Amino acid sequence: MNARALDASSLRDPGLLALMAPASVAVVGASSDPGRIGGRPINWMLRAGYQGEIYPINPARAEVQGLRSYDSVAALPHTPDAAIVAVPAPQVVGTLEALGEKGVRAAVVLSSGFAEVPGEGAALQQQLLDTARRHGMRMLGPNCLGLFNANVGWYATFTTAFESGWPRAGRIGVVSQSGAFGSHLVCLARDRGMGTPFCVTTGNQADITVGEIIHWYAQDPEVDVIAAYVEGVTRADVFVEALAAAQRARKPVVMLKVGRSAIGHRAAQSHTASVAGNDVVTDAVLREFGVARVRSVDELLDVAYMAALKTYPLRNTLGVASISGGVGVLISDIAEDEGMAMPPMPLATQKRLLELLPYASPVNPVDCTAQALNDPTLVRSFTRAMVEEGQYTSVLSFYAQLAGVPPVADRLMEDLAVLRQEHPDRLFVVSGTMTQDRQRAYDASGLAVLEDPVRAARAIAAMGRLGEAFERSHSSWLPEPAVLTLPRGPMSEAQAKQLLAEHGVDIAPEQLCADVESAVHAARSFGWPVVLKIVSPDIAHKTEMGGVLMGVGDEEAVRSGFDLLLSRAKAHVPNASIEGVLVARQMQGGVECLMGIQRDPVFGPMAVFGLGGIFVELLNDVVLRRCPFNEEEAERMVRSIRSVGVLDGMRSRPPVDVPALARMLSRLSVFAHHAGDQLESVDLNPVLALPLGQGAYALDALVQTCSNHGKETGK
Amino acid sequence: MNARALDASSLRDPGLLALMAPASVAVVGASSDPGRIGGRPINWMLRAGYQGEIYPINPARAEVQGLRSYDSVAALPHTPDAAIVAVPAPQVVGTLEALGEKGVRAAVVLSSGFAEVPGEGAALQQQLLDTARRHGMRMLGPNCLGLFNANVGWYATFTTAFESGWPRAGRIGVVSQSGAFGSHLVCLARDRGMGTPFCVTTGNQADITVGEIIHWYAQDPEVDVIAAYVEGVTRADVFVEALAAAQRARKPVVMLKVGRSAIGHRAAQSHTASVAGNDVVTDAVLREFGVARVRSVDELLDVAYMAALKTYPLRNTLGVASISGGVGVLISDIAEDEGMAMPPMPLATQKRLLELLPYASPVNPVDCTAQALNDPTLVRSFTRAMVEEGQYTSVLSFYAQLAGVPPVADRLMEDLAVLRQEHPDRLFVVSGTMTQDRQRAYDASGLAVLEDPVRAARAIAAMGRLGEAFERSHSSWLPEPAVLTLPRGPMSEAQAKQLLAEHGVDIAPEQLCADVESAVHAARSFGWPVVLKIVSPDIAHKTEMGGVLMGVGDEEAVRSGFDLLLSRAKAHVPNASIEGVLVARQMQGGVECLMGIQRDPVFGPMAVFGLGGIFVELLNDVVLRRCPFNEEEAERMVRSIRSVGVLDGMRSRPPVDVPALARMLSRLSVFAHHAGDQLESVDLNPVLALPLGQGAYALDALVQTCSNHGKETGK
Repeated sequence: MNARALDASSLRDPGLLALMAPASVAVVGASSDPGRIGGRPINWMLRAGYQGEIYPINPARAEVQGLRSYDSVAALPHTPDAAIVAVPAPQVVGTLEALGEKGVRAAVVLSSGFAEVPGEGAALQQQLLDTARRHGMRMLGPNCLGLFNANVGWYATFTTAFESGWPRAGRIGVVSQSGAFGSHLVCLARDRGMGTPFCVTTGNQADITVGEIIHWYAQDPEVDVIAAYVEGVTRADVFVEALAAAQRARKPVVMLKVGRSAIGHRAAQSHTASVAGNDVVTDAVLREFGVARVRSVDELLDVAYMAALKTYPLRNTLGVASISGGVGVLISDIAEDEGMAMPPMPLATQKRLLELLPYASPVNPVDCTAQALNDPTLVRSFTRAMVEEGQYTSVLSFYAQLAGVPPVADRLMEDLAVLRQEHPDRLFVVSGTMTQDRQRAYDASGLAVLEDPVRAARAIAAMGRLGEAFERSHSSWLPEPAVLTLPRGPMSEAQAKQLLAEHGVDIAPEQLCADVESAVHAARSFGWPVVLKIVSPDIAHKTEMGGVLMGVGDEEAVRSGFDLLLSRAKAHVPNASIEGVLVARQMQGGVECLMGIQRDPVFGPMAVFGLGGIFVELLNDVVLRRCPFNEEEAERMVRSIRSVGVLDGMRSRPPVDVPALARMLSRLSVFAHHAGDQLESVDLNPVLALPLGQGAYALDALVQTCSNHGKETGK
Repeated sequence: MNARALDASSLRDPGLLALMAPASVAVVGASSDPGRIGGRPINWMLRAGYQGEIYPINPARAEVQGLRSYDSVAALPHTPDAAIVAVPAPQVVGTLEALGEKGVRAAVVLSSGFAEVPGEGAALQQQLLDTARRHGMRMLGPNCLGLFNANVGWYATFTTAFESGWPRAGRIGVVSQSGAFGSHLVCLARDRGMGTPFCVTTGNQADITVGEIIHWYAQDPEVDVIAAYVEGVTRADVFVEALAAAQRARKPVVMLKVGRSAIGHRAAQSHTASVAGNDVVTDAVLREFGVARVRSVDELLDVAYMAALKTYPLRNTLGVASISGGVGVLISDIAEDEGMAMPPMPLATQKRLLELLPYASPVNPVDCTAQALNDPTLVRSFTRAMVEEGQYTSVLSFYAQLAGVPPVADRLMEDLAVLRQEHPDRLFVVSGTMTQDRQRAYDASGLAVLEDPVRAARAIAAMGRLGEAFERSHSSWLPEPAVLTLPRGPMSEAQAKQLLAEHGVDIAPEQLCADVESAVHAARSFGWPVVLKIVSPDIAHKTEMGGVLMGVGDEEAVRSGFDLLLSRAKAHVPNASIEGVLVARQMQGGVECLMGIQRDPVFGPMAVFGLGGIFVELLNDVVLRRCPFNEEEAERMVRSIRSVGVLDGMRSRPPVDVPALARMLSRLSVFAHHAGDQLESVDLNPVLALPLGQGAYALDALVQTCSNHGKETGK
């Protein structure tokens, strides 16, 4: 990252610029011992040839590691761009104050003993933040391992990682909430020959979060791929905007987000003071922005490595060339797991290839057998046919140890390099064993090498998903602004339905009847049978107390049912305020779904859709999305549940009205968006989806406002 | 594998012994060019120092690679133990004939052009087999890459793999249907420092199958772990007996079985002439014998590597020690995925550890933070507490690059080695980066090293599953022998039910009635309501043609229903033979299940159990097992379905009678076992499982005999 590149970019925050590429730095708590936290960053910078000024601050010494040392921040001859803070926790506030007064724009706080420890830590951390903010100074940490920008020799970190070698040049930016993990990742990447010149560890992220660094990388012309490790999302707005920026910039965000499990969740909360959040919600947000979510360190590296080729095939099809039929089968299994198509070669091509080599399997996987050893032209002909006639967007070639043994290996690399040059939109991946030097030569030719064919196939599938995510870009659809004020206090079913109906949600035909005669009249007008339900703001779960009567078939039944419901309600909640009995047409057929809104403390209102009953209870087959979204997006959601077959008409039943479901879901999301913090949740359960063309109707509705919403809106 | 070890073992097949460790070998089609198929095995053996005699056979030469060459097999001065055959396909039969006449006990046929190619290949392969069998000679291949036994320098293979290095000494035996895959695996293992001195590739496996080699390894005292690559199982009896032998010997079989997907299945069938088979069935068989089934090459290596420590913890609990809280969280997520418990440390221990290091997380994951760098005693105290107080059976320590940087690394290894010596029943795994030399030192101390903590956690979970598989050993339960002859031709529902009832399957109370008066009488005796069903051997799917009437509530309804069913049956199949109407009590409540038998062409009768309706149709939530099995095993099966919550009583419904289901399933399996090849399938759908203590009843039954069974049993 040179100054010119940065000037030309749209990176506007001077504090972040000072953090990522400072021209000078103060080290508060500087140590002469390169093994100590206050000594190691200086040592790294000296060894790496940092071109800026380093000002050690240590009142006990005149010189630190050969550099002139200063007594205090105030005593510095110039204002440094950034500062590294490595003093005990109780001294950090004072240090920040001094740095702020001096006009320093960014502080890297390595010290620990803040929100990650019980007791006073959280309050002390808040003081740090207040101090930094008062001075307009940005802060990384506290309790972080620091950061580095290898392109300018800036190493504000006390990691020991570089004892085994420096990071390599390249275009992958790393950001990690955990310092040890970030360091580990950088070492592994280096050992695999990957270039990660940037790594920021955010620790307690009192000020600067992972999201903000992702956003920085999204705008940084020196970064093509963003590798992120996340425990919990703290500032959803920043995070979401960062993911959107990366998607717009067509820069893959490859993310290991931990804390999925119960133990993991608990562990994440006790670590670096993060809120792990509801993983299901976070996962929905990551999917929304096309983040490549990975489950292991190897996968993180595999996907980031391949992504650095910047080839993200749309409608990805995989052609497999293999000297081992067995590995071809293995790759086919993985392609199916990943939903990646492996169409067969055109028949004419198959015929031609069989003429070249009668024992070949020319379909896909294409197997030119061990003959590849003896005839150098075979691999070339077969692979070219796959690219030009099979039209595969990705070609995975498995050559085992042949990929590394000259002269086969030399020819192979040359042939593939030529194909890649002629077809730069295709992804060429080789699986086999070879030396690191040879692998670097493949990399230099724009070809990827992954030893394990399974991991190669999975990473190729990830490239296709990235291509689709970049293609759809992020819909920035927003509804017309509207002001919506929810009533205070609990809402009855009838009130909830009326409110939702006003916002475009279709409610089953029904009528609230205060007396038995109007109930009979309503039932007659709907047609038989009808459903009767007690309506009271004091009774939330009416089914459990017998407050719903189904299949009421004639006038006499309406009369007796009406009385029965009133007596049951009084028995259940003696002083219940009864609004009456709801008479509704009992709908037949269709599929029961559920729809709702749940306010997430991190990401705000989330819409939920699923099928009713065991699909949700047992299978957890639901889809979530941040609100609001349009009908097109809603239909994608509805169709993304695993049990979508039920909606498309199982057991020769007609398909249901998915467009009507989508319309309702989108309108519900708009309602939730406008209601904002006033709304806690909406439950439409069931929503009956009738056969296509006949609509979808909410049969029950429960709206809960926030418990303190009355007070808030009353301000 | 030296001769003494083999003599002392119970390995009885002299042909296999000659294959695995021959004292002398003929090479038919021997070539002077070490690059050719007939030249490379000789070259490898000469370079590796094979101690036996090598007899090249090539009538065109007096000498091959410095060895005296012979004109023909007949011209050999002695009978070699084994022969390598590398002549064109048309000459192989003649060669085998000559070898057989000479008294050779094992032939490795490297030549291709047999069942793997269309046309005459299959017939030619059958000739090979017939020839070998006639002479009592065992045959590997054809179309295989051969085998090696590095312990005696026996390299009957034309792989190029050893150009990059020889296999290492060790105790892992490899067997692979695919030659290229086997070679690749051996190279990868070698590069990771793993010892795989044996590798057999079986190719078309006309005679010797993967199963037989697994069995050999199970009995071979020089092998502890069996790594297998399988495309399709051809001889189920051999395969199953091999898995049972390995389980009895407590030797893990780590298997990559490919061909799960549709494309993979197709590809597997065209490759090495294998029948991939129904993967769901194969998977059930692998689970039965506790095979560690893996999904990628890396996982195959990870699990085999860790298994070579021979520590398979029972009731596996994982303690995680980490210098990175983040990685602790990551590992917790994986442990939950794998169903591996991570209980917390005892409270007293937590308190004590906090006194040692106030910033630590002492629960589990245990995080002694970056202080591990500065205080050498911390890691020791924390890890010892985990082993001795936390009582974890497995301890995973994540130290990132610290694991490889002296002096921390030296202390760490020493501390862990001491703990392992004191607690040899515990599994100690380190995750971090280090040199290969250091990793070898860890290995030598009985400690495992895997760089990626996710892969480490998954491999640890696999060790626990192996421990459980070895503990339960394989139940060799068999029912009393019985002769059972099924009637010829199609069976009506009533016939099927009577047959099954005779074999102990509970059928819902019911009666076949030929006339309306006896139907009324039967209904009265059962109590109302009843179900009426048409009974005809000519109508298989009676529901679809309206042949079932539910909820028949009184005598009048029985009368009209009886007539209705007869008229519908006649309309549907005009000449149907009608046996009458089945009157059954209509059972209420309970959970609908399904149970059945399906004959698998490879593994014979397989029992199936699942819940009814969408659970099977949409979720494929079924469990399979080879027949027969006892009630205990049947109950394990029933409880292993994902939706078992429905049986245990969802939504405050009572739990159902699982023991009754298990009894029925076991009896069904015994029936299928005795029926053998006469039986094609049984469908009991639904089986109604009533509340606990009230039993389970088959409400419908369909038995299909084999289409050619009549002829067969008529012999």
